[in-house]
Amino acid sequence: MPYFEEMKIGDRRELGSFTFTPENIKAFAVKFDPQPFHLDEEAGRKSVFGGLAASGWHVAAAWMKLTVASFKREAEARAARGEPVVLGGPSPGFEDLKWIRPVLAGDTLTYDTQVSSLRSLDTRPQWGLAEFYNTGVNQRGELAFSFKGKAFVPRRPAA
Amino acid sequence: MPYFEEMKIGDRRELGSFTFTPENIKAFAVKFDPQPFHLDEEAGRKSVFGGLAASGWHVAAAWMKLTVASFKREAEARAARGEPVVLGGPSPGFEDLKWIRPVLAGDTLTYDTQVSSLRSLDTRPQWGLAEFYNTGVNQRGELAFSFKGKAFVPRRPAA
Repeated sequence: MPYFEEMKIGDRRELGSFTFTPENIKAFAVKFDPQPFHLDEEAGRKSVFGGLAASGWHVAAAWMKLTVASFKREAEARAARGEPVVLGGPSPGFEDLKWIRPVLAGDTLTYDTQVSSLRSLDTRPQWGLAEFYNTGVNQRGELAFSFKGKAFVPRRPAA
Repeated sequence: MPYFEEMKIGDRRELGSFTFTPENIKAFAVKFDPQPFHLDEEAGRKSVFGGLAASGWHVAAAWMKLTVASFKREAEARAARGEPVVLGGPSPGFEDLKWIRPVLAGDTLTYDTQVSSLRSLDTRPQWGLAEFYNTGVNQRGELAFSFKGKAFVPRRPAA
């Protein structure tokens, strides 16, 4: 990822796409969210979701997976340019996570992230706190998922 | 779960405990959050976490797993008492998720949920909207994880 000093409000990044299949929906649900509408097509069809639906936590975990892959691509690009690789800091949490539309088997979400807030921290001079507005849009262009994430981002070391 | 009409603000429920092991921390991280401090003891020790640390999304997924198990126990208890089994509705999302302390290999979190808000919905007379304050406390009694969840809860059908 970039140093805190290199980030600007509004910076947007496409993280990539993830397709939810019956197999990966059920595999996640068996381990972490074994509710009938996440495990069985027929139960899904009869539910408010109207089909085999991904766990909301699976939708979030897919965002994380693509985010880490995006960090890795950026680290490789920085290394190729001879720039220092920046390791991201921990996240204190997030706000306003919304599961806006069901994500059904066969749906593909494309995830995006946009810098929405940047704050320096008096108590932790080596970190800045960045907020990101994250979205997942399905193959019909409908917003299905959003949340405001936060992360500590390393500041550029003094030269 | 209970019907909306049976819930009261402050109702508290212990969901159960989950122990984060090197094996389950790494298995989750490989699939969804392959950052070094979630994959490797030495990288974890050198990080701000100070040890092999569970992905925050793993900490949340363990909450979901225990919540579903708690629903199942309650459904069985209701069935045994001859009461109707209530299937929970979808969640529109949640707020203020906080990863307060690292969760390291060997830590056990005990998760609790407490009803914090109950609202009837003019537009959806068959559902109420409940909010829950969820917490995860480690084996030293320290709060490590919290968030405010929301869920649609079925209303008791008219007799």
